Amino acid sequence: MVTATAIPVDGERLRRDIERNAQFGAVPTEEGQARTVLPGTEPNRGARKQLVDRMIQAELTVDVDAVGNIVGRYTPDSCDPAARPVAVGSHLDSVPYGGIFDGALGVYAGLEAVRALQDTAVSLARPIHVVSFTGEEGTRFADGVLGSSVAAGKLDPAEALALSDGEQTLRDALEAIGFQGEGRLDAADWDAWLELHVEQSDRLEELGTPAGVVTAIAGTPRLHVTIEGAPNHTGTTSMTDRTDALAAASEFVLELERVARDTTDTAVATVGELSVDPGAVNVVPGRVECSADIRDVDRTVLERIVGRARTKLDELESTRGVETTVTCSYEVDPVSMASRCRDALHDAGAAVGAETAAVHSGAGHDSMQVASVTDAGLLFAPSEGGHSHNALEWTDWHACTVTTEILPAALVSLASETES
Amino acid sequence: MVTATAIPVDGERLRRDIERNAQFGAVPTEEGQARTVLPGTEPNRGARKQLVDRMIQAELTVDVDAVGNIVGRYTPDSCDPAARPVAVGSHLDSVPYGGIFDGALGVYAGLEAVRALQDTAVSLARPIHVVSFTGEEGTRFADGVLGSSVAAGKLDPAEALALSDGEQTLRDALEAIGFQGEGRLDAADWDAWLELHVEQSDRLEELGTPAGVVTAIAGTPRLHVTIEGAPNHTGTTSMTDRTDALAAASEFVLELERVARDTTDTAVATVGELSVDPGAVNVVPGRVECSADIRDVDRTVLERIVGRARTKLDELESTRGVETTVTCSYEVDPVSMASRCRDALHDAGAAVGAETAAVHSGAGHDSMQVASVTDAGLLFAPSEGGHSHNALEWTDWHACTVTTEILPAALVSLASETES
Repeated sequence: MVTATAIPVDGERLRRDIERNAQFGAVPTEEGQARTVLPGTEPNRGARKQLVDRMIQAELTVDVDAVGNIVGRYTPDSCDPAARPVAVGSHLDSVPYGGIFDGALGVYAGLEAVRALQDTAVSLARPIHVVSFTGEEGTRFADGVLGSSVAAGKLDPAEALALSDGEQTLRDALEAIGFQGEGRLDAADWDAWLELHVEQSDRLEELGTPAGVVTAIAGTPRLHVTIEGAPNHTGTTSMTDRTDALAAASEFVLELERVARDTTDTAVATVGELSVDPGAVNVVPGRVECSADIRDVDRTVLERIVGRARTKLDELESTRGVETTVTCSYEVDPVSMASRCRDALHDAGAAVGAETAAVHSGAGHDSMQVASVTDAGLLFAPSEGGHSHNALEWTDWHACTVTTEILPAALVSLASETES
Repeated sequence: MVTATAIPVDGERLRRDIERNAQFGAVPTEEGQARTVLPGTEPNRGARKQLVDRMIQAELTVDVDAVGNIVGRYTPDSCDPAARPVAVGSHLDSVPYGGIFDGALGVYAGLEAVRALQDTAVSLARPIHVVSFTGEEGTRFADGVLGSSVAAGKLDPAEALALSDGEQTLRDALEAIGFQGEGRLDAADWDAWLELHVEQSDRLEELGTPAGVVTAIAGTPRLHVTIEGAPNHTGTTSMTDRTDALAAASEFVLELERVARDTTDTAVATVGELSVDPGAVNVVPGRVECSADIRDVDRTVLERIVGRARTKLDELESTRGVETTVTCSYEVDPVSMASRCRDALHDAGAAVGAETAAVHSGAGHDSMQVASVTDAGLLFAPSEGGHSHNALEWTDWHACTVTTEILPAALVSLASETES
């Protein structure tokens, strides 16, 4: 591993790119700044078009794959064009009314890192590819990390293109915006991968540290739970005669909270969705459907929490006479980041004078897909107040520059070797 | 009080009326029979029209008041036409997908009782009025007992007519179906009132008793509760950093259930409605809105339960950091039925050979409004399995006849005196 060297980035250029990107799908808000950029929509077309324009300005060779993943290839004269590249990037789509940094910071920080490498004419042994993945957020067509799942070979491009939001397939949506390309961007071809993303938590802010190097991304089993009771008139059904699905669900919610609290510091478990049927003021709840989102970096911890959730539902069947079903609607295993990439990021932080902390990621990212086929590293920039997925998401522009500056230094150290 | 005498009713005639009434607003169901007859709709027009036709066939004098309450006046030659009448009836509207007996049985049993009195040419001192009240169920324009609130002088007719479902006022809806009449049916003009209704509970079935004479109708305070937490990313917000509105609401649901269980045998308390905002699998619940429906026949018990609910919300503010609000969205006091009417119903049961049990009513009925201005009696027919407000609501046709037969005997005893 070569020693990391500071490569200055142009914070103003980065800011202009992100601010212009924020205009696509911009939505009015009382406070802060927000945008709605679902994959395959007109705002997404605008955001993609700007990225391609910037990549061409930077003389990158741009390609779009079948599912709309965009790659800009930087192949400096110094490198072996046949060497496995080092890739860097994130995503351009957003949640509805999402913030302006989530995803966009990582894409443009990757591009800015390459421009910084060009400006300083650093010698590299490997090409650098800047990547924007399609549909990371899971708000349309899939549950998330769509483009990176295809790039990691976990989802077939034809299957992905056939996914529909009920009105339009991914293929039709991408064709309509002119971003349905050919072939499959294959992350297994990359020697390594780096992603810069906002933290979406306030740990870095509380530590006063400008950058977090992620150790592992939490796994996320999600349960879909139904609890069947008996819908009856609230006035004529005595307390001893009723089978109240919501009272049973309330015990489940509290048990899940208790179990997560008692397990590890990193474990979280949440019932975020809950609907009551028939949901009338004067009818005892007959049926509840709810979700359970469970996360930890340790698979055995996840198994323990899921097991306790199932045990509680069994107990409710005997104590309350409800009928319950539970299905695992989504499951992502915990993923460790490569030590090689983590070291490169910590060393780069030291080289540019930006303190780094080792943190875990509670949220899922494209990096967890990429990590299944190559060495992956994930770097966090601080989120003010931990806000994310809403208009209050914010990272000071200076903080963006400081964290972004870690990327070119880390890329140099990863792309300077061809034997790893 | 005269001794009650058995007056035979025509069970087949009653059944035909109810079955024909069930065709208005009939909706397909997998099991049982259901109808949707909201006030001021086309099915409601049909049901009202049939009732008026039957009343005219029975030579009653029909009037419709400003809010659509229908009255058919039977003034036999034997009576003093100026004497305060005894009224009998119920309502024709239903909940969505409601059963075919709720309300309709009481209206047509009242009419059948009058026809039975006519058939046997019983001498009466007072006129008998058969009544159908508008909008008992509270599914459109108001929270319920709309027409009877006007008849009891608790709601001004002009105010009632201005009530809107968001698209149409009661006045416009009644005009559109030709049932917006004049004046105000005044229950204070009645010497007494009787209502036959399905029990909507399985107590009579369990007792093996064909008729229940209601002692009191439970009061119903309803609370509207909001619980504000903080919506955050489920993955990046540690268990100790979150303010989960649904976890707080779950404690509230269970506390309300516990308090009602521990208070009296008649007390019930239910959270029937609960909505989670934003309600996404990966967002910690930021806000919950829910209802609490609390019932008992004793006002001090109601006050105790409401007090415990408020105490729990205060406790949640300190233990969980949520903000809560609670408003009483609806309040009906417990109402006792008149001993004179209860006695008349028990005696009539004995006269016709139908055993009667004294029971309370957990559900609200038009009788609770009428009881505030005159002597009121409420009689229950058994509900198979206690089912009500859905397609499984059922009362065997023979049981309908047995319970209905109590009415003419009780009417004779109430309407034979003019000095009470």
